[in-house]
Amino acid sequence: MKYDRVYNFSAGPAMMPLEVLEEVQAELLNYRGSGMSVMEMSHRSKVFAEIAEEAQADLRTLMGIPDNYKVLFIQGGATLQFSMVPMNLMKNGGGVADYIVTGNWSKKAYTEAQKFGVANLLATSADRNYSYIPDCSDLPVHPDADYVYICENETIHGTTYQKLPNTKGKILVSDQSSMFLSKPCNVSDYGMIYGGVQKNVGPAGMAIVIIREDLIRSDIDARTPIYLRYDTHANADSMYNTPNCWDIYVCGKVFKYLLSIGGLEEMNRRNIDKAKVLYDFLDSSKMFHGTVEKEFRSLMNVPFVTDSAEKDAEVVKATKAAGFDNLKGHKSVGGLRASIYNAMPKEGVVALVDFLKKYEEEHA
Amino acid sequence: MKYDRVYNFSAGPAMMPLEVLEEVQAELLNYRGSGMSVMEMSHRSKVFAEIAEEAQADLRTLMGIPDNYKVLFIQGGATLQFSMVPMNLMKNGGGVADYIVTGNWSKKAYTEAQKFGVANLLATSADRNYSYIPDCSDLPVHPDADYVYICENETIHGTTYQKLPNTKGKILVSDQSSMFLSKPCNVSDYGMIYGGVQKNVGPAGMAIVIIREDLIRSDIDARTPIYLRYDTHANADSMYNTPNCWDIYVCGKVFKYLLSIGGLEEMNRRNIDKAKVLYDFLDSSKMFHGTVEKEFRSLMNVPFVTDSAEKDAEVVKATKAAGFDNLKGHKSVGGLRASIYNAMPKEGVVALVDFLKKYEEEHA
Repeated sequence: MKYDRVYNFSAGPAMMPLEVLEEVQAELLNYRGSGMSVMEMSHRSKVFAEIAEEAQADLRTLMGIPDNYKVLFIQGGATLQFSMVPMNLMKNGGGVADYIVTGNWSKKAYTEAQKFGVANLLATSADRNYSYIPDCSDLPVHPDADYVYICENETIHGTTYQKLPNTKGKILVSDQSSMFLSKPCNVSDYGMIYGGVQKNVGPAGMAIVIIREDLIRSDIDARTPIYLRYDTHANADSMYNTPNCWDIYVCGKVFKYLLSIGGLEEMNRRNIDKAKVLYDFLDSSKMFHGTVEKEFRSLMNVPFVTDSAEKDAEVVKATKAAGFDNLKGHKSVGGLRASIYNAMPKEGVVALVDFLKKYEEEHA
Repeated sequence: MKYDRVYNFSAGPAMMPLEVLEEVQAELLNYRGSGMSVMEMSHRSKVFAEIAEEAQADLRTLMGIPDNYKVLFIQGGATLQFSMVPMNLMKNGGGVADYIVTGNWSKKAYTEAQKFGVANLLATSADRNYSYIPDCSDLPVHPDADYVYICENETIHGTTYQKLPNTKGKILVSDQSSMFLSKPCNVSDYGMIYGGVQKNVGPAGMAIVIIREDLIRSDIDARTPIYLRYDTHANADSMYNTPNCWDIYVCGKVFKYLLSIGGLEEMNRRNIDKAKVLYDFLDSSKMFHGTVEKEFRSLMNVPFVTDSAEKDAEVVKATKAAGFDNLKGHKSVGGLRASIYNAMPKEGVVALVDFLKKYEEEHA
């Protein structure tokens, strides 16, 4: 590959579009005649304000974000959102929320929410190691629930929702970290969407929060840390304190790149096409098989196994030696996992499948 | 200047060493044969682990950090520390802390602390618009105080402590954001030191926390958000969740740069030498004068004014036109402010003084 780059199947941080990296490199010492690197710019300067405004405008175009939703750039990743969601969206003193737990990430969010109110386990797929998404068409949503929470794509377990839950009129909050911008999204189906950017967009260090304005409340517990209030960030357009300027800049470039290739429709087409190569192989292989029920397979994270942990480890070692990086599966699933986010080219998946086919032949 | 770069007097984010930026640029598409950018690396990978370990080891060498202090890399800037300090260091249910308020930043920290316990105003310089540091040799430190808090260099008001407060045996917590690594520091004089990195080290998006191990408690309020607990970060060596990998990488390069020039002794020598050029001019000028009492002048942030706001605005405009950026003073002080952090070369200050001298002659 160009510049001797490798196919990096990391679950995150992960590959970024080469076009974006090249632009970033070219602008690194002097951004467009400003005389400085973006890393050195005052966040209050005109030149950086333009970068941030353009990034937000491009994201709005890309996702078709309605005007009554705010876009916030907040540090601390999804982990900080696990706390901020209940602290801001549960009602004071008697807040209730329904959580659907389909893997490690929704479980962490559910556990954290219990600190701040009553978090109900509305449904879970824990019974079969999170290898599917439960039927969410008629769940017993709590009448007092302030919101229903999902992790729409579970990075570790490799599942994704094909259909959003029926929340029976309650607000839906979705962690889209590992599928953010991978396909079109009807924002108005949600009260709030958020995503840590380091899986499918840019460098680690920021989450993007898309939240309906009427959900940003100022009457929350007065002892909420200032940084953890959505109104702090919304009222200052994500500039209450110095944001992660570099991340906003790089993510902005990724938004422009996605617009340039035809937006999220085209990105989705490519992602379907790319994942099919790997899933078709897994379905035809005698040595490897996917761990997720077909209907709920993620287009982003593809866990698969052989029939033994020893063989799994040998394959991981062989892929690494052949220049495919970060294919070891997470310990809670085992085996291998190929994360094939937006920026993984189809050629990378084809090369991996060619390798696995050959490996299977040689080790049959 | 090389690459048509400007002298950027921003209060933060601010200038970085050109040597560091050049290295970052060279490594951007493929970090040392890893086949990927640092922005794309799994934080759990061996290659990134080495970057993070080296950064921490170099910082320890640079500051002489004793073994019984932890170094933590935490997102959210100083603002998140304003909350984390009282949430972690005040004792449960009846915590008390003493705050010395010498400007906007210590005031913000003091205000935030009131959410979590009893924050006492131990001393303040508000009476003369924070233009000095109060005498802290014999303050009425509260017997129950869990810590005494200071902002050691006030970015906006341009003051700095010449001598640490007598805390009468209590732990000292210091916000060093705008003076971090600007001079030698005896870490064991403090219970905790922290600094947002975007002023004197690297790109915005991270604070570095240096905390004595015995102060990291696990018995704090169980409802503390997981990300806001020091033990979360300490127990996972700053990798509980994905850290700001890019920032760790770039800051690590700055640490190496500082070691290469001779460490903090040499950096301090250069900073004294550089600030003297500007202060000597201000002391001899009839048009401009510094706003801070001489004894407490910061080597990093130099606010100065003419005798009218109109003239101030004209000078700011003229400096901008002459290629000196971000010299407008903060609204709470007015006038101009030259932030001359570690990475501002002496030539930049000399050029600014030459410009101001000429301006004064022409407008006498």
